[in-house]
Amino acid sequence: MWEEKENALHRTILFKDFSEAFAFMTRVAFIAEKMDHHPEWANVYNKVVLKLSTHSMGDIVTEKDRKLAAAIDKLGSVFFN
Amino acid sequence: MWEEKENALHRTILFKDFSEAFAFMTRVAFIAEKMDHHPEWANVYNKVVLKLSTHSMGDIVTEKDRKLAAAIDKLGSVFFN
Amino acid sequence: MWEEKENALHRTILFKDFSEAFAFMTRVAFIAEKMDHHPEWANVYNKVVLKLSTHSMGDIVTEKDRKLAAAIDKLGSVFFN
Amino acid sequence: MWEEKENALHRTILFKDFSEAFAFMTRVAFIAEKMDHHPEWANVYNKVVLKLSTHSMGDIVTEKDRKLAAAIDKLGSVFFN
Repeated sequence: MWEEKENALHRTILFKDFSEAFAFMTRVAFIAEKMDHHPEWANVYNKVVLKLSTHSMGDIVTEKDRKLAAAIDKLGSVFFN
Repeated sequence: MWEEKENALHRTILFKDFSEAFAFMTRVAFIAEKMDHHPEWANVYNKVVLKLSTHSMGDIVTEKDRKLAAAIDKLGSVFFN
Repeated sequence: MWEEKENALHRTILFKDFSEAFAFMTRVAFIAEKMDHHPEWANVYNKVVLKLSTHSMGDIVTEKDRKLAAAIDKLGSVFFN
Repeated sequence: MWEEKENALHRTILFKDFSEAFAFMTRVAFIAEKMDHHPEWANVYNKVVLKLSTHSMGDIVTEKDRKLAAAIDKLGSVFFN
């Protein structure tokens, strides 16, 4: 699901519409805020593009990114059908 | 699912946790704002209590409430398992 | 601002409209999730009613509630005009 | 505030932190959903980058984009200090 390249974890997800995409973003936002580790992400309509890396460590992939990615994947059973 | 009593549609939903409950609320909020018809609702942790009635019509159940209820039910395939 | 009665902190806030009320709720939701201490709250259109108490301590007001109340008050400069 | 270039309206906004940035995004999301006209946007921590254009018209700036930009500006008194 996640592609590791250029020192970051990448994933693009398509939803049914904007409302579903933004609800997903809200859930990710909660997780990120709780972990105090935030994604770089973009959205247009039903598409969400995620890029995870650790800025404080010089923009490389760390354990924090893998944990955030795993937590996002756990949302999957609810959101990614 | 919805109970009609005392001139309102009532429904209580339990989620896994607060984060899932609030993501559901965000989706309902979008629908409500788009319809310009808003619920009376309460939340504590994983529980959301909804009450739908039309204030401008003297707090009775109208077609607007039934449409909002139906739209919330359509979220069901994603959220209510 | 907060009234302490019946073993809980109470506050009612009126916003301009639903959209502003729900944006406020989103911010409170983030704080609550981060603190792992969640409010009992209700909303209808532009009104948000908050009730804070600590369930695990037998529904009394504890330091957790005072911290959550203070964090909500800090949002005030942005939201409560 | 908005810069028009390459057939789109652009604006970058810095907030205090992620929580404030995402609350702003939530408000924009409501407006967008109500207008049925959605932004292309990106976020990392406290930064939100907006790009508005009309896809159905061949990715040019239309009246829809100007209306969305104006509605976002109206949030300004609350969010942009």
